[in-house]
Order: sequence, then structure tokens, then C-alpha cells
Amino acid sequence: MGSEDASERTAVGWAARDAGGHLSPYSHTLRNTGPEDVVVKVLYCGICHTDIHQAKNHLGMSRYPMVPGHEVVGEVSEVGAEVTKFTAGDIVGVGLIVGCCRQCHPCASSNEQYCSKKIWSYNDVYTDGKPTQGGFSSAMVVDQKFVVRIPAGMSPEQAAPLLCAGVTVYSPLKRFGLATPGLHGGILGLGGVGHMGVMIAKAIGHHVTVISSSDKKRGEAMDHLAADGYLVSSDAAAMAAAAGMLDYVIDTVPAHHALEPYLKLLRLDGKLLVMGVINQPMSFVSPMLMLGRKSIAGSFVGSVEEAEETLKFCEAKGVTSQIEVVKMGYVNEALQRLERNDVRYRFVVDVAGSNLDAA
Amino acid sequence: MGSEDASERTAVGWAARDAGGHLSPYSHTLRNTGPEDVVVKVLYCGICHTDIHQAKNHLGMSRYPMVPGHEVVGEVSEVGAEVTKFTAGDIVGVGLIVGCCRQCHPCASSNEQYCSKKIWSYNDVYTDGKPTQGGFSSAMVVDQKFVVRIPAGMSPEQAAPLLCAGVTVYSPLKRFGLATPGLHGGILGLGGVGHMGVMIAKAIGHHVTVISSSDKKRGEAMDHLAADGYLVSSDAAAMAAAAGMLDYVIDTVPAHHALEPYLKLLRLDGKLLVMGVINQPMSFVSPMLMLGRKSIAGSFVGSVEEAEETLKFCEAKGVTSQIEVVKMGYVNEALQRLERNDVRYRFVVDVAGSNLDAA
Repeated sequence: MGSEDASERTAVGWAARDAGGHLSPYSHTLRNTGPEDVVVKVLYCGICHTDIHQAKNHLGMSRYPMVPGHEVVGEVSEVGAEVTKFTAGDIVGVGLIVGCCRQCHPCASSNEQYCSKKIWSYNDVYTDGKPTQGGFSSAMVVDQKFVVRIPAGMSPEQAAPLLCAGVTVYSPLKRFGLATPGLHGGILGLGGVGHMGVMIAKAIGHHVTVISSSDKKRGEAMDHLAADGYLVSSDAAAMAAAAGMLDYVIDTVPAHHALEPYLKLLRLDGKLLVMGVINQPMSFVSPMLMLGRKSIAGSFVGSVEEAEETLKFCEAKGVTSQIEVVKMGYVNEALQRLERNDVRYRFVVDVAGSNLDAA
Repeated sequence: MGSEDASERTAVGWAARDAGGHLSPYSHTLRNTGPEDVVVKVLYCGICHTDIHQAKNHLGMSRYPMVPGHEVVGEVSEVGAEVTKFTAGDIVGVGLIVGCCRQCHPCASSNEQYCSKKIWSYNDVYTDGKPTQGGFSSAMVVDQKFVVRIPAGMSPEQAAPLLCAGVTVYSPLKRFGLATPGLHGGILGLGGVGHMGVMIAKAIGHHVTVISSSDKKRGEAMDHLAADGYLVSSDAAAMAAAAGMLDYVIDTVPAHHALEPYLKLLRLDGKLLVMGVINQPMSFVSPMLMLGRKSIAGSFVGSVEEAEETLKFCEAKGVTSQIEVVKMGYVNEALQRLERNDVRYRFVVDVAGSNLDAA
């Protein structure tokens, strides 16, 4: 950070400069520590599929230079005058959202991730008019409302994926009345979100079936993640035999696909929870929903409160995310490997161990 | 009915003979009164859109001769030895279902309308191997489990539409947590189900907006049904102004249509409840659900328990269905008028007053 004068404080991040999405070192200024602000020295930051979409401008809304990263774990190095929740030395997390209007119905009901004026951790503009920059950086300044405490018993690199992938499955299970033991759940797709889905659902006490397009991940799902069942979606006989067996399916597939095979797996009142941002229309016929009072529902990460709840839940239940820790110099290769699903299951960048300020 | 000998009892109904769907008098035998059976002298029977689909074989599963009718109100004329719930003279109702397996998860949880072995009131085969025949008939024999009591304070012709159209909206409002006062609801389509939706939602204490493709029904909706708002779906400015305002939309449109305009009307956690059997795929893009934790859900009539609850609720709240009572001789014209939506809002056939046995 160099200077002791807060007004001149800079951080070094790794930024994409264009839609090529290649990250390289980039110095940027951090805002002065406001009364409600927490200065976080970044320790670890997970890599999420969304980071690829943003860095490569897949959604057509990218601004450059862009420092991605929204599964951030760090150590508090300074707090503003009115910060009561944290003190220097605390291990904390920051997720996808760093601002909201605080007045609308979602904000008033602690669902700030649904605020239409929410501010994203990066690729957005903060209230001071300056770009937000994410966690692939030596430091961040974040309003205390959007900072969560990492439980003392949890290692910071383990915590990182819980801040996005973890709460992304925990929140809808809770909100759709599925956080009770004894249910039968399906997890469609075994990537970063899917593997958290298996582990969190198992920890809640569910019978969990992994659904995949091939047999490739069977051993991994059954032996390593301790799933209770494995279904290959192209195996018509197995899919037919499993019809009407599941209370929910968490659909993590981030590309267009048919929904009917999975709606058929649902029993009465079953819910298909769609997690992937897919802009190509998905379709269903109404009797598939009507004859079983089934729902297709969407959900988007979780609230700050739910992120803290997810962390506490995972600590209490001993849920540990499966990660591959890499240095920042490897981030471009990691992004390429993630793009071809060659990771088991989440990359986490050891930011502090990469000596960004020295680069 | 002619004979006093139960083994020879016949009834006269009006049946379709082929996919032309024209109804004409048809004598059929009623089964002997089993220990759990209730013999019902039909007084009134509502006409539902489903009756057209079945009579004209729109679903490709029709058997002829077919006596339609599944909003049946009648008087108990005889009961089986083990019937404890009813005695002769009781005014009772029969809906869409007259049998179920009694063992599966839906049956065990009083959701027998979702039993995969349910038996339809007509166009189905009963446990004795004989065709079931519906309420456009002088009499029916029905297992007591599928017979509901009509409240003493309710006229039988008023009760008829509640047995299908009424419970079809009451059940999902209850099951999806929407039966609490103060919510904002939308009713898309103002037919038989839609008009019940307006009245039941108002009686629950909701702010109700009718959504229609044209301005034609505005006066009717606002003045006659006492809706709180009226939205024309082709009015882009009005639809945009109403975005995010509704907790639910009950979608009664029985033909293919776009869902996005109505998903946009929903606020956080909003639900689009699809009521129309539509075999052409309907579509959505996942961010429309994700950014608002919204659901698209289906529902199919309601249980016997819920039908009784609907009747009691409507009696207590003074909800009266809007009906046009006709004689059986008019049924073919009524079906034609219903097919072109020329009814305000439900035809009910005065079966007893049509002297079917004399025909």
C-alpha cells in the first residue's frame, strides 16, 4: 500500500484491459476510508464463472480496466470512525455486492441482492462516481454493511467459495422451504456451485442425487462428495425409474438445455431451481407443472445475512469446499482451465501470497 | 330412475357420441350402491372449458358415449351401509375426481388430485371396469370420499362453479402462501376461472388487478367484480408503470402466450401461477426468474378437503359466483357460446329442472 496517507492509498490488482479477458497487474487508487468503511487486505479470492463472463464482456456490459473477483477473504487493516462491527485484524469476507439503495422493498427486507440499484463489487460505479474493483487486488475498501465475519474455526481459503457458490445454493434451499432434513434433492451439473450444492444439501440432511450428462463424474460424486445417487441424464431407463422421486433439483447448468427431463424427476410440490444465467429462452409445457403443483424458480446469490449464515452453517457442519489454491501469476491459466471445466472444483487465488504490491 | 331395484337403476344423461361434441340424451346404468357409495340426484351442473376439450377430443383421449360435467350439485337420495358422512336429503357436491389409489404420497397427504391413478368423474374407467359418466345426468353414484357438503346458506346453483373454478384458484393461493390479506395480485384473463379469482382474492383481502388483452372488460372488472385495477397487456406504458408491483399473477389464459410481460409485473418472490393446459411450449429466460427470486408454478384444481374449504370460505365471505342458468336443452348452444367466451361468467345447467328422465 506504500503510503500512510489515506488520501494517496493505492492498491495493485490484476485487471482485464479489454474483452480478450487477459489479466495483468494494474495500480488503482482506493477511496479514503469513510466513516462506515472497512479497509481489507485481501488474503484469498475465489474464481467464479461470472468472472470470465465479465472479463470477456459476454454480457456486453464490461468496463475496462476491470479487476474481477467477488469471493474475497481478507484481514481488516483499518476501519472508519463509525464502524462498530469490525476491528483491525478481523478476518472478513466480501461477496458480489458492495452497495444498495437501503430503501426499496428488497433492501428493507434484507434481500439487498435484489435491489435494482445494487452496486457490484467490480465492473460497476460506486457512489463516489469511481469504478468498483474486485478482489484480485492487494486491498479493497468496503462499506461495513457488505462485509461478513469469517468464523474463527474456518481457514480463509476455504471460506472464499462460500461467499458466492456456497450462499448461491444455501439461500434458495432456505427461501424455498427446503432447508429441512429428510428431503430428496438433485444437483444438476457438478461444477463450483454444484459441488457446494452436494455438500450443503448433504449437511442439511438430504438424500442427494447428482445428475450429469455422462458417467465421467460418478466416482467423484459418490466417493469424494458422498452423494447418495448418480443419474446420467441420457440414460432414459434410469431417468424414468427416478421419475417423481425428488423434492427439488438445483440446476447449475450455465447453458441452454431442456427442462422437462428434470421436471419429470420432481414429486408433488417439487421445485426446479434455476441458477444459471441463460439468455436463450428455456421452455416447458404447462401440464408438466400443473400435474404435480411444480415450480420453476430462480435465485441469485444470497443476502449478506445469508452469507454469514452459510459460513456459520458450514463451520458447524464441517463443510469444506474443494479448492485448488493458485498464485496470481497463474490466474490466466486458471481462467482458461475453468472455462473448459478443468478444475476440481474451485480455484482460489492466494492473493496475499502473490506479493502484488511488489510486482 | 324408474326401478326401485338398485341392480337395474338407470340414469338419463346428455352425452357426446363423437368428436363433434354434440350432446344428446343417453340412458346409462348406474352401479349398485356400494357400502361407501352415495347416490346423488343431480340438481345443477356447471359447464367448464374442460368439458369442451373432452367432448371434442381435443386431448386425444376421449371415449364415447361421454356424459360430461364435473361441477355437480345434487341431493343425496340413498347412501351405502358404511356411509357416515351423509344421509338422504343432504345437498352435496362432486368435482373432477371420483377415485384415487389412497396409498401414494399425494393420496396420503390429502392431495388426491395429484394421484397418478386418480379416476376422473367422466371419460374414465371406474374400479368396476365401467365408464365413468359426469353430471349432465339425472343421477350419479359416487364414493363418499369424493362427495362434499354444500353449506346450508349457499344456493346449489351458486355452489356449482366453486367445485372446479373456485377451488382451482383457492387451492394455489393457499398452497403457495398467498392466502394472507394485504397482497397485490393480478388475474390474467377474465373467464370462468378468472372471475372466481377476482372474487376470491378480493375476499381474502388482496388488492386485485385484472390484466386483459383489451379495454373491453374494464367496466365489468372494476364496477361489477370490484377489482382495484385494470391493466391492458398491450399498453406498454401502463405495463412498464406496473412492473414489480404484484405478489402473484393467476394466469388463466388457456392458449399459448408470452410469459415475460407478466413475470415483469412480479415483485421479489413473486409467483406466476399457470392454470391453463397448454401443450405448446411456453418460454422464459432465466434472469427474469433469478433477479427477483420469482417462480412459475402450476396447479391443478384442488383436493376434496380444499373444495369443502372453498365452499365454507365463499359462504362466510359472501362470495357468489356469476352464473347464467340454462336448461339441458340449451347445453349445445351454451357450449358454443362458452367456446367463443360469450358468457358472463359461468353457465350452470338446471339439471333437475330439465326433467331428463321424462325425455
